[in-house]
Amino acid sequence: MVGIIGGGQLARMCQPPSVGLSITLSVLAESVEAPAALVVPSAPVGDDTDVEAVRAFARECDVVTFDHEQVQAEVLAALEADGVILHPSPAALMFARDKLAMRRRLTEIGVACPRWAQVRDMASLQSFGDEVGWPVVVKIPEGWYDGKGVRVVGGPEEVADWFAGVALDGAEGAGALADGRLADDRPVDGVLVDGLLAEQKVDVIRELAVLVARSPSGQASSWAVVETVRTDGVCTQVLAPAPGLDPNLAAVATEAGLRIAGELGVTGVMAVEMFEVTDARTGDPAYVVNDLAMRPHISGHWSIDGAVTSQFEQHLRAVLDLPLGDTGLRARWTVMGNVRGGDHGDLYPAYRHLMARDPALKIHLYGKGVRPGRTIGHVNVSGADLDDLRARASHSSDYLQGVTTQ
Amino acid sequence: MVGIIGGGQLARMCQPPSVGLSITLSVLAESVEAPAALVVPSAPVGDDTDVEAVRAFARECDVVTFDHEQVQAEVLAALEADGVILHPSPAALMFARDKLAMRRRLTEIGVACPRWAQVRDMASLQSFGDEVGWPVVVKIPEGWYDGKGVRVVGGPEEVADWFAGVALDGAEGAGALADGRLADDRPVDGVLVDGLLAEQKVDVIRELAVLVARSPSGQASSWAVVETVRTDGVCTQVLAPAPGLDPNLAAVATEAGLRIAGELGVTGVMAVEMFEVTDARTGDPAYVVNDLAMRPHISGHWSIDGAVTSQFEQHLRAVLDLPLGDTGLRARWTVMGNVRGGDHGDLYPAYRHLMARDPALKIHLYGKGVRPGRTIGHVNVSGADLDDLRARASHSSDYLQGVTTQ
Repeated sequence: MVGIIGGGQLARMCQPPSVGLSITLSVLAESVEAPAALVVPSAPVGDDTDVEAVRAFARECDVVTFDHEQVQAEVLAALEADGVILHPSPAALMFARDKLAMRRRLTEIGVACPRWAQVRDMASLQSFGDEVGWPVVVKIPEGWYDGKGVRVVGGPEEVADWFAGVALDGAEGAGALADGRLADDRPVDGVLVDGLLAEQKVDVIRELAVLVARSPSGQASSWAVVETVRTDGVCTQVLAPAPGLDPNLAAVATEAGLRIAGELGVTGVMAVEMFEVTDARTGDPAYVVNDLAMRPHISGHWSIDGAVTSQFEQHLRAVLDLPLGDTGLRARWTVMGNVRGGDHGDLYPAYRHLMARDPALKIHLYGKGVRPGRTIGHVNVSGADLDDLRARASHSSDYLQGVTTQ
Repeated sequence: MVGIIGGGQLARMCQPPSVGLSITLSVLAESVEAPAALVVPSAPVGDDTDVEAVRAFARECDVVTFDHEQVQAEVLAALEADGVILHPSPAALMFARDKLAMRRRLTEIGVACPRWAQVRDMASLQSFGDEVGWPVVVKIPEGWYDGKGVRVVGGPEEVADWFAGVALDGAEGAGALADGRLADDRPVDGVLVDGLLAEQKVDVIRELAVLVARSPSGQASSWAVVETVRTDGVCTQVLAPAPGLDPNLAAVATEAGLRIAGELGVTGVMAVEMFEVTDARTGDPAYVVNDLAMRPHISGHWSIDGAVTSQFEQHLRAVLDLPLGDTGLRARWTVMGNVRGGDHGDLYPAYRHLMARDPALKIHLYGKGVRPGRTIGHVNVSGADLDDLRARASHSSDYLQGVTTQ
């Protein structure tokens, strides 16, 4: 039995491949209406911050994996002490949870990153910015995700509130955020931050993602490098494979993804979010790594319909140390369109219309209540004409969101 | 909520597409360990011969469909009287349950069948055989399936026991089988048979199947015509599409499948099993219909991986009267290999080996206990080289069954 902590859409999408592979899932769900709880027979409701609840859940499972990376370190430590087999391990997961640790480790193993520094005060940030050029990207290293806890700033004063929230202690360099909250509205209870992460704002040509999987015995696989299209900071489309990608860059980026998985001891699926940039010296296309996600990821949703083995099937194979599946493309192109909630709660008429309008559209809904802006599903569409596929994916996303009624 | 009566593998394989479509399933299962009960959260255990149990189950569902066609007529009548929406309807399902009614109706609508007759005694069978030539195929028209209740006979005396079991009454022509059992070991409690069905034994070139789906509002779709390969009477492989099929025959056979669905008022997926024969007058390739199955069928399992819309997704769309999906091929060829149980109960080592040996193999297990000869799963493999695909599918089936250890 594979246990998944968290009952979100990623756990939900593990269920279809588990049926064919005859792998029994159990999900520790936030509620009986969590996306995965609606489709998995074994879905006990429990709070992933409740150590005893998580320990009891894990005791019934052969291996435990994650729907999200936000499980508290103490909970992970308790599971590890119990001898629970965790994939990815807390030691690997740490690099997806702590952006400073990630930058440090990637730099050590020679993976290209934007220039970066750990800044503990405004003067250090000023120096860093003066050296690499303003604006600078400043990130709270832990406890934040989905683009929150990130600011692009023209000077240190724009994160003065963040520095004020960090009660530094000179010895360890670690401090608790003063009142458990930062300037945004998200609580960061108990997270200790050792300063902030400052990064050079690179000239991004486009965003790429490399999706890899690695099993405990070290077998690894990668899918084609994809392009991630963002609108207002939100991933709206993924193009698989990334159109017109320089073959050398594709090879180098893939190699980097596999190297990260191996060096960091990642098990299961990992997405490496990258920026395509131009190498300042050679003028050649190059990458820098933006972020890591150690779980199935939105940049891999296309693989459900576009690859021989989807990221969800591969994740299950990997965490069980089964041989990995073929990641070849099923079609020349597959486009994934992210579907977000709109103003009307009843998706059914839109869904019905899209099925009639585009019989080849693959609709994947997450069983979530509709709220404006909330990701509630995605569509995949495969074929030979990329422009046509992009238009169909956009239309479907917009129609489901209510942006268009045409 | 879509209710499925019966928790076998066909109900089980409806679960993966239900997740993406966000369709809630409920299965009336034979036991908590029925294949579908292992993967569907709502799977009350109940006996499908228990009218009250089935009525209570159906009350919770928006529509009710079937894992198998063997639900008793009285149970179907009770549901219909309750106003339950059944797909297919009992009126349509009857033609899949009663082979005499099926032959009569297909002949009326001009669909090619082997020459046939309803025979109520040995003298009638003798006349029929003398006219069409011996041997003759004799079938018990109701209550038998999976090739049971069928004999190929050289003379009427070879089914004397069947005639002896039929207590004919001259008025209605219907009689109960004397002791509720026929010569084989399968009980046929309460089934009334109005004589036997005799059919000409045609010269079969190969077996074909046409899979269609039809929705209540009359939209219909078909997949490519496939070839069904049998070994010792059991379906061992399906080749999609049927290799080297005459395009005119493909068109005529597909048209026949869609006509049957329309004329019989079928809703959901239907498989039409056909024989490819040579037209005695023209010498052209032709078909005759062998049998109908009004549900997803083994001849359509290839579509899970080989078609844009699988038979299971299409069945759900159809019974909910949603627009039907694209049935186009995802690959030049897809071969389905049926996996039967062998002598060793633990599949895991074989399964693991096959995953390593053939990473592109799609394995679909049904969660059933292994018994020799029992269908426990299937494999699909897609690509451009049919011979290679057939060899890989055969090897996988044999390896899982323990026939080969190479």
